[in-house]
Amino acid sequence: MSSKHFINDPTHLVNTALHSLTLTNPGVALDAANKIIYRRPGSHSRTGNAAYASQRVSIISGGGSGHEPSFAAMVGPGLLDAAIAGTIFASPSAAQVRAAIMGRVDGDSDDGGGVLVTVMNYTGDVLNFGVAVEKARAAGVRVEMVVVGDDVGVGRAKAGKVGRRGIAGTVLVHKISGALAAQGRPLDEVVKVARLAAANLVSVGASLEHVHVPGRAAVDDTEHLGAGEVEIGMGIHNEPGSGREKMMELPELVGRMLRQMLDQEDPDRAFLRVNSNEVVLLVNNLGGVSVLEMGGIVAEVVAQLEKDYGIKPVRILSGTFMTSLNGLGFSISLLNVVNTDIGGPGMIELLDYPCEATGWSSPISKITWEEKNAAVREDDAAAVEGARKPSGLTMDAEAAQEALVAALENVVAVEGEVTRYDTVVGDGDCGIGLKRGAEAILNHLSIEPLSSDAVVDVARIVPVVEMEMDGTSGALYAIFLNALVAALKSVAPAEMSPKLWAVALKQSCEALSKYTPARPGDRTLVDALYPFVEVLEKTGDVKQAAEAAKSAAEGTKGMKASLGRTVYIGGSGFEEVPDPGAWGLASFFLGLAGIKETEEFWETV
Amino acid sequence: MSSKHFINDPTHLVNTALHSLTLTNPGVALDAANKIIYRRPGSHSRTGNAAYASQRVSIISGGGSGHEPSFAAMVGPGLLDAAIAGTIFASPSAAQVRAAIMGRVDGDSDDGGGVLVTVMNYTGDVLNFGVAVEKARAAGVRVEMVVVGDDVGVGRAKAGKVGRRGIAGTVLVHKISGALAAQGRPLDEVVKVARLAAANLVSVGASLEHVHVPGRAAVDDTEHLGAGEVEIGMGIHNEPGSGREKMMELPELVGRMLRQMLDQEDPDRAFLRVNSNEVVLLVNNLGGVSVLEMGGIVAEVVAQLEKDYGIKPVRILSGTFMTSLNGLGFSISLLNVVNTDIGGPGMIELLDYPCEATGWSSPISKITWEEKNAAVREDDAAAVEGARKPSGLTMDAEAAQEALVAALENVVAVEGEVTRYDTVVGDGDCGIGLKRGAEAILNHLSIEPLSSDAVVDVARIVPVVEMEMDGTSGALYAIFLNALVAALKSVAPAEMSPKLWAVALKQSCEALSKYTPARPGDRTLVDALYPFVEVLEKTGDVKQAAEAAKSAAEGTKGMKASLGRTVYIGGSGFEEVPDPGAWGLASFFLGLAGIKETEEFWETV
Repeated sequence: MSSKHFINDPTHLVNTALHSLTLTNPGVALDAANKIIYRRPGSHSRTGNAAYASQRVSIISGGGSGHEPSFAAMVGPGLLDAAIAGTIFASPSAAQVRAAIMGRVDGDSDDGGGVLVTVMNYTGDVLNFGVAVEKARAAGVRVEMVVVGDDVGVGRAKAGKVGRRGIAGTVLVHKISGALAAQGRPLDEVVKVARLAAANLVSVGASLEHVHVPGRAAVDDTEHLGAGEVEIGMGIHNEPGSGREKMMELPELVGRMLRQMLDQEDPDRAFLRVNSNEVVLLVNNLGGVSVLEMGGIVAEVVAQLEKDYGIKPVRILSGTFMTSLNGLGFSISLLNVVNTDIGGPGMIELLDYPCEATGWSSPISKITWEEKNAAVREDDAAAVEGARKPSGLTMDAEAAQEALVAALENVVAVEGEVTRYDTVVGDGDCGIGLKRGAEAILNHLSIEPLSSDAVVDVARIVPVVEMEMDGTSGALYAIFLNALVAALKSVAPAEMSPKLWAVALKQSCEALSKYTPARPGDRTLVDALYPFVEVLEKTGDVKQAAEAAKSAAEGTKGMKASLGRTVYIGGSGFEEVPDPGAWGLASFFLGLAGIKETEEFWETV
Repeated sequence: MSSKHFINDPTHLVNTALHSLTLTNPGVALDAANKIIYRRPGSHSRTGNAAYASQRVSIISGGGSGHEPSFAAMVGPGLLDAAIAGTIFASPSAAQVRAAIMGRVDGDSDDGGGVLVTVMNYTGDVLNFGVAVEKARAAGVRVEMVVVGDDVGVGRAKAGKVGRRGIAGTVLVHKISGALAAQGRPLDEVVKVARLAAANLVSVGASLEHVHVPGRAAVDDTEHLGAGEVEIGMGIHNEPGSGREKMMELPELVGRMLRQMLDQEDPDRAFLRVNSNEVVLLVNNLGGVSVLEMGGIVAEVVAQLEKDYGIKPVRILSGTFMTSLNGLGFSISLLNVVNTDIGGPGMIELLDYPCEATGWSSPISKITWEEKNAAVREDDAAAVEGARKPSGLTMDAEAAQEALVAALENVVAVEGEVTRYDTVVGDGDCGIGLKRGAEAILNHLSIEPLSSDAVVDVARIVPVVEMEMDGTSGALYAIFLNALVAALKSVAPAEMSPKLWAVALKQSCEALSKYTPARPGDRTLVDALYPFVEVLEKTGDVKQAAEAAKSAAEGTKGMKASLGRTVYIGGSGFEEVPDPGAWGLASFFLGLAGIKETEEFWETV
């Protein structure tokens, strides 16, 4: 993993990161001395329960820093009431935790609902939180502690009496118990449900790299995983998992992870027998996996769960819930949803219960999950056909076809020249591209001649251009011609005339100008297009318009391209040749105007 | 950046990641052929607007993959109606976009509200989306396109007519226009507000590494940033920014980024004059920065905005909104909130408007933002003192003090032995730790002798132990003594007797057992503790109990430690010596029982 960081001082990093939570969520406050983030008293949030805050159970958690958004960003209505942070990867002290239990929540007050402290199963956390819990209890606070150990990465033999470590599945315990507390349920129920959730939880991670802790010396080679290695079960503090292995394809990796979680035949694990029809899946980013890749991982996990275990999770959460800094890994957690037997909300309802915390990033509502809406939309091909309905914009089909064929043949004829110009100033593909497009339209016209309806005829040509012409200029032609269809529609019904063509073409030019900054003078095909339209509008004479286009194309000689596809591969020579795109288009216009002797014509210029 | 990935086939990666969105949000469907994620028709979400869906403007966006959660995970009520994905870092084709506009939303229908297409300013996106927009318009759809270019990383001189690139600020345009559309406002207003937002937006990024695209060959050396380099303004496709520089401290880096965004004297930039009292700040993770570090960055940005520009943002969003895969960088965006002049909701209200999409991870509500609650909680020191209120649990203070002092002196006396044992089987600090604790309590007792109230007396000793004894055994002692206070309280008022002590001690043992898996036989101090309590309970005789503790401590010889702090540095020798922790505790009990000749006593065993 990269050992580069924007902030290298770990103390400053942890302190400012905690402060930032009060900036991104004004509902929480920071006790900087004790590194406690807690809900501000008296806040009325949208999930508000301030009304009975004093009888409500308070939920507290915490642990080493470096696992954000756990735990501090999980503080908010419906989730945690306070979270205590240690330094990176180290437990907070008992004194910090005591300060949270005794002074930062309501649950500890005389008329409070009590306090539930949830920690992950690491010796330092269990002992330091334990001291604080016992101290609070000695002071008369009703406080219970639940320890979560969901990680199956290290099996029974190796873990021994210390038991399983806690990893990302812990956030499900937070969410479920936080929602129950928010509903005003008593401490014994909240503790019971938290324990039930913890007992029905399995997780396992996989990482491609050890993570680097800001401020520490770069990890030595033995700490690195090799280029082709993966470690299943690596902990969120770089702890060893079940061993380093050769990198395998994702399906095999996920298959092995799921077996560690679900295989009932494995005497070293089999920590959970899934016996519920309701299973929750959480796929957690350890911090450094791209969101794109997380998506691919989720899809693989879901597919294998169904195929190999017949498990179709009723909730699938994926995101960054508990990190190992920017660890290049992910973890999978499965919650077997059992009856809470408290005559109240079930675990799913509690998971869906609204909360307000920047760290809980699964905003999909109960309604959406339960609606089971499988409706899809079909592609509306008819809508496209609609563009080709007779418009009443009539023209002389035979004359139009003759002019258009001549124009296109002219484009084909100048391919050699255009290619030569483009070889000087561009990447040499302009001539071929124009020729390919022109030939395709000629072919189309030979099969389906013009119909005398200008809208229908142009609309039919559009898909031919879209299919055959690529690159920037292809897209510009497609935009122009699509806009031309719309423009022609807007003047229909009418009998076409050069002036009416000019009106429509002008609208197309305007449409085009929204998608490209190219204007005359930029050495693009626009240099030939605009003069043609303008002169046609003024004079109604195609010949004059075509000649204007030709002059303008000629005038691009010496112009520097200020944008567009013209890559000056040669780096010079642009003084000698016109812009190939403008030249090609001018040739089209010349053909349209009946000026067919292109080669000779140009030579006389 | 690491070139390790869990999925290396980019096509499979993009396709499965899109599919996964239908798993994590059942409200959306996938058109796999066209890589379109769209809202399922007829869904009634909690932010529902299905009622007037047919008159509602539909919002469409999209672009290359690799920027998740943009754009597909932003599809949902209150945000986008459809998103079209290209391959990694490449625009979708015009045909894909056309399929979305014409077939995957309601806005295009005859009684629909029209369609807004928002794209970022990259040539390929603008042209391909442009073709589709013009094609839809030609087919009669009311459709408008807004192009967002918020990135100030490349100045006017270098960007030229192509203009600014679009980066993370774009999601604010999506959110604002999506909320307005959800409220049933007409297309012209939605377009106007989207353009206003885009025009009042500046962003800039900074990265420590180029990002590696799955499936591509590892980047060559010239593509890498050096170990000590940072690039301000690097694009989200690794495009060059304003240049590579030596890595600087975060305050300097942020200062330079803010100047690029806000300096009105910079003729090459000064793209935005902040003239509103309402500014929105978005700090976006490009994918590979730890959440912890993002917090530190947010705090620095907010501090400098206020100090150097007098800007106090009314909303501060931070998270992963638009990535460059798992890019090791972040971007800052600022939205200058101007009057929308539509006689309707303002931009802030639109930003706060509920939405339901897995990619929009800022769940803080309008109420919370606007409540401006600055209430904090003070540490409740009195609560701790409460533990020391007179309990009515009386004892002979003089005799108790004499026994306790003798016990502690015995612990001090055996320090040499305990150290020797711990040097064989542990890290050698056990004797010193016990001695330090015992001396501190002796000192405390000399200043504040026992009072005859057992609760008060033990409660006063607790903080001395907490201060002086560290490590695992220190925490275990602290837990035990805190639990003892609570246990003693539970039997008060009464006159203390050895049997009553045993009752309280037993409760403490039970409390301790919740925080450590250590049980007799594990070679820990518990080996001395449990027998003492059991025998005391049975016999009421401290001497017999102490001798039981001594025998048990002696019996730890040869035991293998199955957990705890005993580190077998020597790797052997545990057959020869007892567990030092158990030995030290047994010495305490012996002293308590008046068996003071420890050294000689042990020698006779």
